[in-house]
Amino acid sequence: MISNNFSEVRVFAPATVANVGCGFDVLGFAIDEPGDEIVARVREETGVVITAVHGDGGKLPLRVDQNTAGVAATALLQDVTDNLSFGIELELYKKMPLGSGLGSSAASAVAAVVAVNRLLGDPYERKDLLQFAVEGERVACGAAHADNAGASLLGGFVFIRSNHPMDVFPIDYPEDLHSTVIHPHIEIRTEDTRKILRKQILLARAVAQWGNVGALVAGLMKGDHDLIGRSLHDEIIEPIRSVLIPGFNQMKSAAMDAGALGCSISGSGPSVFALSRSKEEARKIGSAMQRAVASVGLDSDVYISKINKAGSTVISEKQTQEWNSGMVE
Amino acid sequence: MISNNFSEVRVFAPATVANVGCGFDVLGFAIDEPGDEIVARVREETGVVITAVHGDGGKLPLRVDQNTAGVAATALLQDVTDNLSFGIELELYKKMPLGSGLGSSAASAVAAVVAVNRLLGDPYERKDLLQFAVEGERVACGAAHADNAGASLLGGFVFIRSNHPMDVFPIDYPEDLHSTVIHPHIEIRTEDTRKILRKQILLARAVAQWGNVGALVAGLMKGDHDLIGRSLHDEIIEPIRSVLIPGFNQMKSAAMDAGALGCSISGSGPSVFALSRSKEEARKIGSAMQRAVASVGLDSDVYISKINKAGSTVISEKQTQEWNSGMVE
Repeated sequence: MISNNFSEVRVFAPATVANVGCGFDVLGFAIDEPGDEIVARVREETGVVITAVHGDGGKLPLRVDQNTAGVAATALLQDVTDNLSFGIELELYKKMPLGSGLGSSAASAVAAVVAVNRLLGDPYERKDLLQFAVEGERVACGAAHADNAGASLLGGFVFIRSNHPMDVFPIDYPEDLHSTVIHPHIEIRTEDTRKILRKQILLARAVAQWGNVGALVAGLMKGDHDLIGRSLHDEIIEPIRSVLIPGFNQMKSAAMDAGALGCSISGSGPSVFALSRSKEEARKIGSAMQRAVASVGLDSDVYISKINKAGSTVISEKQTQEWNSGMVE
Repeated sequence: MISNNFSEVRVFAPATVANVGCGFDVLGFAIDEPGDEIVARVREETGVVITAVHGDGGKLPLRVDQNTAGVAATALLQDVTDNLSFGIELELYKKMPLGSGLGSSAASAVAAVVAVNRLLGDPYERKDLLQFAVEGERVACGAAHADNAGASLLGGFVFIRSNHPMDVFPIDYPEDLHSTVIHPHIEIRTEDTRKILRKQILLARAVAQWGNVGALVAGLMKGDHDLIGRSLHDEIIEPIRSVLIPGFNQMKSAAMDAGALGCSISGSGPSVFALSRSKEEARKIGSAMQRAVASVGLDSDVYISKINKAGSTVISEKQTQEWNSGMVE
């Protein structure tokens, strides 16, 4: 039985770092900030509407079938029942930059499905919401990739064995692992960064990459910082995409000189991440990277956090009062 | 100080399954049988000699610089000291088929370095012997790959992040994991199986492969049999090399129908391995696979074992008596 236990739910979904060096399309992790918030409310008319988007500078569509949050929420509603007697309105608070390589569209989609699921009394387990969130990714990026959405939903590190069929699972990591993310103030479209990749690669280079992917998974699960560092190399994607990011080489050198375990592009960029062992190191690395990107004339934001363990979280909820009449089977 | 604490040492080194489905050039595991034995003895003249090779049908060279065991033992001796006042003779008992895809050359090289190291009073830790064993692999296969040698030396599952520089580490696996290996009675040369591979592969296929490699590592370390099974796919190497193995598709189908977690080529073939959860399952799978390969007219051997945890082992040793004069700095 699907009911609206709450009349209003507010959810936070964190930004995420996808690819993580060698792990192109298979690895992602969540960070504490930035992130998106969505308020979902029950309304009388059926279906999903987006009443407002704040903080996007007017760039995001309000049309449900064009907005990642709307598409994801609709996918959930269509799956849960044919027979819902009420509808849902979404209000989206973009609290992170668009096109930053930090999983902006994924965070919105994840926040939407977590909020709607909660409104309906949690008919789905957390992990089962991913299938709906990636529908939002499909409209934003042209493909249903689960790396950002999986990490934003579940928190921690997630590994994507396969997108079709979806096979996503969490992997353990050392508790002291910290992330530094620099967002230089330029915009790159994910679709463009995908087009410039070569369709064919050398087998020898692919072997080196899957050596690093397997070793990175082992390093994270063993809590072996040195192995994590030795594995954080991407000889396939990074050399191509990094040319779109002014100051990338300078930022990476600065991060490594400041003691980072590794440094690479976050998602398809332009954000750049580095991993380290403590908040103090993460801050020092952030300062060095910001100076490096400033030297090529770019302003930037820096985000320092532990790996975000919680993933998306319900911030507040209002119990249903007069809306009890909205219950359905 | 390097001395000869023992006058004679006999060592067993196990056969190994390299590649393990998706893990081309990065993964290997050891099995209980077959394997090679080497007897190493102190002799008065300096240098390494091979006095006899048994069980090879006269195929292996006695010349030290052409025999994997001789090359590996020599590499160790050259590293340990410039000043050894005695020499070493090796007697090799091949107890496994050549060119079978079970790491025959690696087992001989590993047995040699473990035996020589023991003769000398263990100047090297076990893991540090790998650098010498792979020199033997270089003469046998044309490249210093550590997948077979690493697994034969250390036992269990080993992961090779990189061969140059060598970065090899063990990974945990579920205790109940069993291996079935079928060796069809045909010979394939490793060099030939490498030549037929394509130098370029599709990026999309490479991503699927490193998704499986990372997931297989995670599955082994988590002890998640289902994840191990879902990850044991190789869409890049297996489709090409399997055409050289008569009855491969029939063996694989038989293994999967009999309940195997996964099944693929062992090393470069012609042996084929399957993983399962118990000795009973492993035996059932072995019978089904032998019937399948018999249906295309090939005899075969079958080897059933748990994953070999010990790696190479000293079987017997004789304490030095009159040879104490052989001690050097």
